Amino acid sequence: MNNFMFYSPTCFVFGKETESKAGNLVKRFGGTKVLIHYGGSSAVRSGLIDRVKASLDAEGIPYVLLGGVQPNPRSGLVYQGIELCRKENIDFILAVGGGSTIDSSKAIAAGTLYDGDFWDFYSGKPIEKALPIGTVLTIAAAGSEGSPDSVITKEEGMFKRGASGDAIRPKFSILNPALTQTLPPYQTAAGITDIMAHLYERYLTNTKDVEVTDRLIEALLLTMIHEGPRVIADPDNYEARANIMWAGMMAHNNSCGVGRSQDWNSHNIEHELSALYDCAHGAGLAVTMPAVFKYVMNHDVMRFAQAAVRVWGCQMDFAHPEVTALEGIERLSRFFSSIGMPKNFEELGAKEEDIPVLVKALCRGDGRQGSISGFVTLNEDDCTKIYRMML
Amino acid sequence: MNNFMFYSPTCFVFGKETESKAGNLVKRFGGTKVLIHYGGSSAVRSGLIDRVKASLDAEGIPYVLLGGVQPNPRSGLVYQGIELCRKENIDFILAVGGGSTIDSSKAIAAGTLYDGDFWDFYSGKPIEKALPIGTVLTIAAAGSEGSPDSVITKEEGMFKRGASGDAIRPKFSILNPALTQTLPPYQTAAGITDIMAHLYERYLTNTKDVEVTDRLIEALLLTMIHEGPRVIADPDNYEARANIMWAGMMAHNNSCGVGRSQDWNSHNIEHELSALYDCAHGAGLAVTMPAVFKYVMNHDVMRFAQAAVRVWGCQMDFAHPEVTALEGIERLSRFFSSIGMPKNFEELGAKEEDIPVLVKALCRGDGRQGSISGFVTLNEDDCTKIYRMML
Repeated sequence: MNNFMFYSPTCFVFGKETESKAGNLVKRFGGTKVLIHYGGSSAVRSGLIDRVKASLDAEGIPYVLLGGVQPNPRSGLVYQGIELCRKENIDFILAVGGGSTIDSSKAIAAGTLYDGDFWDFYSGKPIEKALPIGTVLTIAAAGSEGSPDSVITKEEGMFKRGASGDAIRPKFSILNPALTQTLPPYQTAAGITDIMAHLYERYLTNTKDVEVTDRLIEALLLTMIHEGPRVIADPDNYEARANIMWAGMMAHNNSCGVGRSQDWNSHNIEHELSALYDCAHGAGLAVTMPAVFKYVMNHDVMRFAQAAVRVWGCQMDFAHPEVTALEGIERLSRFFSSIGMPKNFEELGAKEEDIPVLVKALCRGDGRQGSISGFVTLNEDDCTKIYRMML
Repeated sequence: MNNFMFYSPTCFVFGKETESKAGNLVKRFGGTKVLIHYGGSSAVRSGLIDRVKASLDAEGIPYVLLGGVQPNPRSGLVYQGIELCRKENIDFILAVGGGSTIDSSKAIAAGTLYDGDFWDFYSGKPIEKALPIGTVLTIAAAGSEGSPDSVITKEEGMFKRGASGDAIRPKFSILNPALTQTLPPYQTAAGITDIMAHLYERYLTNTKDVEVTDRLIEALLLTMIHEGPRVIADPDNYEARANIMWAGMMAHNNSCGVGRSQDWNSHNIEHELSALYDCAHGAGLAVTMPAVFKYVMNHDVMRFAQAAVRVWGCQMDFAHPEVTALEGIERLSRFFSSIGMPKNFEELGAKEEDIPVLVKALCRGDGRQGSISGFVTLNEDDCTKIYRMML
């Protein structure tokens, strides 16, 4: 196991009606003037924003509102949020929404206290300070509620890039599974896929002897395999929603990924798809992951066989481990289809003729030197082949 | 799933030679004068205390030393520590040792800032404030390095009681698996048993539909079953030590126990054994758990069958689930024997004629009204039968 530091100081408040505690939590963590940052009109229509406002009112905490976060959140709104926070002397950001809203809030939080362009942080500059953030989560997917990460799309060129730092970890996150019950099935399934991707990205490691984190990742994958179909069949199933929501947080706060090298090639390859086509990140991952895994499988057949046996319940073919390894990937692929995720470029709305554009953005964008690295290093030729496997 | 709050703000620094970061971490978390609290002479002889002192010296942080913590840490040394902290104006406690040393440090930390008798906290009074604590862990067992809990033995009467509160969660914990390589096999095995007990105490729940925490607990148990025998056979196996050490923290920081009722009857029943006979807590648990589980098994046969199949690899007997459930408990029992743990009262050094004393202390001690509650409620008659099953 590699040396590591693990620091996850977020206070998680989980369960029914917990959004009513938002005001109290903002106060506990020192907020005196709040930016409520949110996405579309559904948070308003559902009454959620009103409930959060009432909870702040009850504590006498003033606030301003900034809605309009889109999936694959954009740099433009971040600049707008930074300006607003400075003008209004905001000292706490409350993200009410999913990963996009939380990621946008993190970018605003870091940008507000920085003299330069916030995009510097998404080009590799370490984040040293940020306004404190709280979240009220409305979709189990990105894990941003418990992570130090944020992904933003730069509108000029539609680059999708990430930043990370303990300063942008939420101080608290309110996780009420009931808030996810109104999600359309496609979004629920995209969330499930994203959570499973966070697990596979950690599972694909070159570090040996990491039994504890292997087992934790497998546990969370098994949870998703059990609860995913339950929630797709019965969107009002609170218990299934609750299990998925906690798994989603645990999948990405990195307690199951410490001390081991990780992959993240699937995420990188997908990011170009959602940046170009504005598709749901999870949907892009459902198409990307099986292709990537088949392409890299021979790098460590036994690792894929282990997942096949322990996670997918395959019988081990001891004479031909590669058969078992491949069967595990096929089952993953069929699982994605079973919950309504796309299987290929066409279903995703991607186009074969764009592959050179995707590969160039992936391997040459933002300072990359012709390849991406993870479980294996993939050059432009590899990435072209992988995109073609998704046709 | 029940509503819950999960807050684990401890910064974990894990890996080889990480004790050299102690001084830097004390500084980061605001300490300016430190009490180094430790146990016996082994921490001195091994050079660990010197390395920790050097690390504080390098940051120019003064310190005083207080050694002598015993297994099943005593109230007497806590009073002594409180007096020393007040006299020396200590503002940070650094625990260098195992669960006993950390628990003693937590009691001193809370007691120093409290006008009354610190034992009030171990009799139910909530802990509101405490000096900040850091730890350098030397045995994977109690999980105190990442928990809000502390257990102290009151010398008058040898009562063993617990206290809990976010204020006594460590600010940081240094986990270097190499420091555990010099432990005698018996202590290593007792630690493994304690970790597995923390998992079973959470596994035995009356809350339905808790797939995610079930799976996480099973993952950590599977890790212990894999790594336990490896480390007993080869005490210098750093990788096995590392997997056990992270599992030990995860087993008790409660990320795998949230949102569900828990048991803790085995711990309560064992506490009377280690209080009376001063045996290793883990050794007492190895004798206690199989007896308790067999006694309560029929309360939820399918839960024990699930553990048997998923954790112990038993084949499910669908016609007779109780056969499978019992087989899982037998395998647990055999596992404890295989790593050198005692099987019964005699091997533990306990005496049949003391059973009435044990039962009275257990069911009538410190305000209890003739029973203990958990997965099932156990009265004096039940507890007598359980202790007799250990003969």
